[in-house]
Amino acid sequence: MSERLEGEDAWLADALRAFTQGPATLLGPGHDAAAVSVGDTGAVVVAKDVLVDGVHFRLDECGPALAARKALAVNLSDMAAAAAAPVGFLVGAVLPRPVERLLFDALMAGFAAASEEFACPCLGGDTNSAEGPLVLSVTVLGRPGAGGVLSRSGARVGDVLSVTGPLGGSGHGRHLTFEPRVREGLVLAEQGIPHAMMDLSDGLSRDLPRLCRSSGVGALVLGSALPLHADTRGASTRPPLERALHDGEDFELLLAHEALDAGQVEALAAEDIHLTAIGRIVPAEEGIQLDLEGEPAPLEPGGWDHLSG
Amino acid sequence: MSERLEGEDAWLADALRAFTQGPATLLGPGHDAAAVSVGDTGAVVVAKDVLVDGVHFRLDECGPALAARKALAVNLSDMAAAAAAPVGFLVGAVLPRPVERLLFDALMAGFAAASEEFACPCLGGDTNSAEGPLVLSVTVLGRPGAGGVLSRSGARVGDVLSVTGPLGGSGHGRHLTFEPRVREGLVLAEQGIPHAMMDLSDGLSRDLPRLCRSSGVGALVLGSALPLHADTRGASTRPPLERALHDGEDFELLLAHEALDAGQVEALAAEDIHLTAIGRIVPAEEGIQLDLEGEPAPLEPGGWDHLSG
Repeated sequence: MSERLEGEDAWLADALRAFTQGPATLLGPGHDAAAVSVGDTGAVVVAKDVLVDGVHFRLDECGPALAARKALAVNLSDMAAAAAAPVGFLVGAVLPRPVERLLFDALMAGFAAASEEFACPCLGGDTNSAEGPLVLSVTVLGRPGAGGVLSRSGARVGDVLSVTGPLGGSGHGRHLTFEPRVREGLVLAEQGIPHAMMDLSDGLSRDLPRLCRSSGVGALVLGSALPLHADTRGASTRPPLERALHDGEDFELLLAHEALDAGQVEALAAEDIHLTAIGRIVPAEEGIQLDLEGEPAPLEPGGWDHLSG
Repeated sequence: MSERLEGEDAWLADALRAFTQGPATLLGPGHDAAAVSVGDTGAVVVAKDVLVDGVHFRLDECGPALAARKALAVNLSDMAAAAAAPVGFLVGAVLPRPVERLLFDALMAGFAAASEEFACPCLGGDTNSAEGPLVLSVTVLGRPGAGGVLSRSGARVGDVLSVTGPLGGSGHGRHLTFEPRVREGLVLAEQGIPHAMMDLSDGLSRDLPRLCRSSGVGALVLGSALPLHADTRGASTRPPLERALHDGEDFELLLAHEALDAGQVEALAAEDIHLTAIGRIVPAEEGIQLDLEGEPAPLEPGGWDHLSG
């Protein structure tokens, strides 16, 4: 691809060249989740996201329970992207010193509640303390669904690009309370629909290039087709379309697929899954473009870069 | 057990009561690693340890490569305790802001080198930045060895208590360069020797009670039998025996087993595995005792508490 890598994506791309994979690796770095063979017939899907107070949540505003819920939910969203069924999670926590028992207990209660809500047992973890912000590192394990493990690779030129729900404005609170699309990911894969899939965590404008890079394709997004979340009309000077493109933390699924026939649309509707087409996959040479009123222009990443903060 | 829980163990024991397990959980919280069923025949073993600059290593002294190596090695040591064969790892990193490319690259190179050294591929990860110390959160996945998954449960009254190597003084540098006992754990389990096993990360005096609690037993440690590492004679005002009991980060395996017959000793020696008996398992009512010259007295935990720091 002609697309220029920037920020963390460039750093990671460079760094990953030094790593070698073994025969057990089914899906390595560069996707929402990894998959590895663990026996004669078994494969495990695994995702790991690290959340930090002041970056991914504000502990003094949202409280420990919502922070814990988010730490689990973002990893479940990665499972959704891989079309895997979660089987359990582990928690690594670094608590700010001096460690307060109230905070510890509230966090654990939050993880216990989230574990119930998402029917995902806690398998274990590791607790530490340090002079720094609260860090919550969650790992989720899953088993491949009936449709097999999906990844960011596999999008084909001519594919429709769709999302599972409206985008933008999650910062008004939805980034803490969103529903990971685990069921949707499993159903979509079981029906053999996605060629490639990922979850939208860092914003469409930053995530779409990752799917395209992994698939070796480009994409054309139709601005008028983007489903704008009602939250994009919340207090902000930025126009709703811009927020839908760049805000991040929507945690909807983005997928590339062949045009759906009426039977597929009906089957998905029966599962209460409603895809919105937002564009199409084009050859890599055409890059990532946004079509605003018939005027395609390069879509520049405006979402979240984890290293520049 | 009559033993009084303290610090993080007490907090965790309270917190874990709120969590429920599902049918897929083969080994839940409270051991070095967890195990979960991921398919009809597959099981995966998983360990997660979080390391923080200033707590588990001093980045400015040891450098990024040794910090990365330790972050992987401590998790491999958990695999060893479970008698699992590692199949891959994931890295979650929180880098201090402003993020320096040199640090990022050196850390990734360190993980790549450790990945080669331990023949354990990197499956993926997550990178973030924050105003705080470097945090390295590694998750290792493994497959059960031929002897099945081992845990801290299963020690029986009358069992011999053994370690795989000398203890104490790891702070002089060995805590960064130690060899995780993965091979030893797999061989011991394959030969059906351990009833219960764990790795010594927080010091014998703090870890042994965990094995005993998990097994519902007590233990008597013979002070004169403890293998003292040469490092315990390093610069310190504390006597070698005290360091062997409390120092922590030896990452040797501690196991409870029936007395070995000559054939077993020979078979282990052929694999270059030499167990040192340090005591025996006693009824829970007798607690955890240290016998110094025929005078048993309660062994008080003196190792590392992760929450009090």
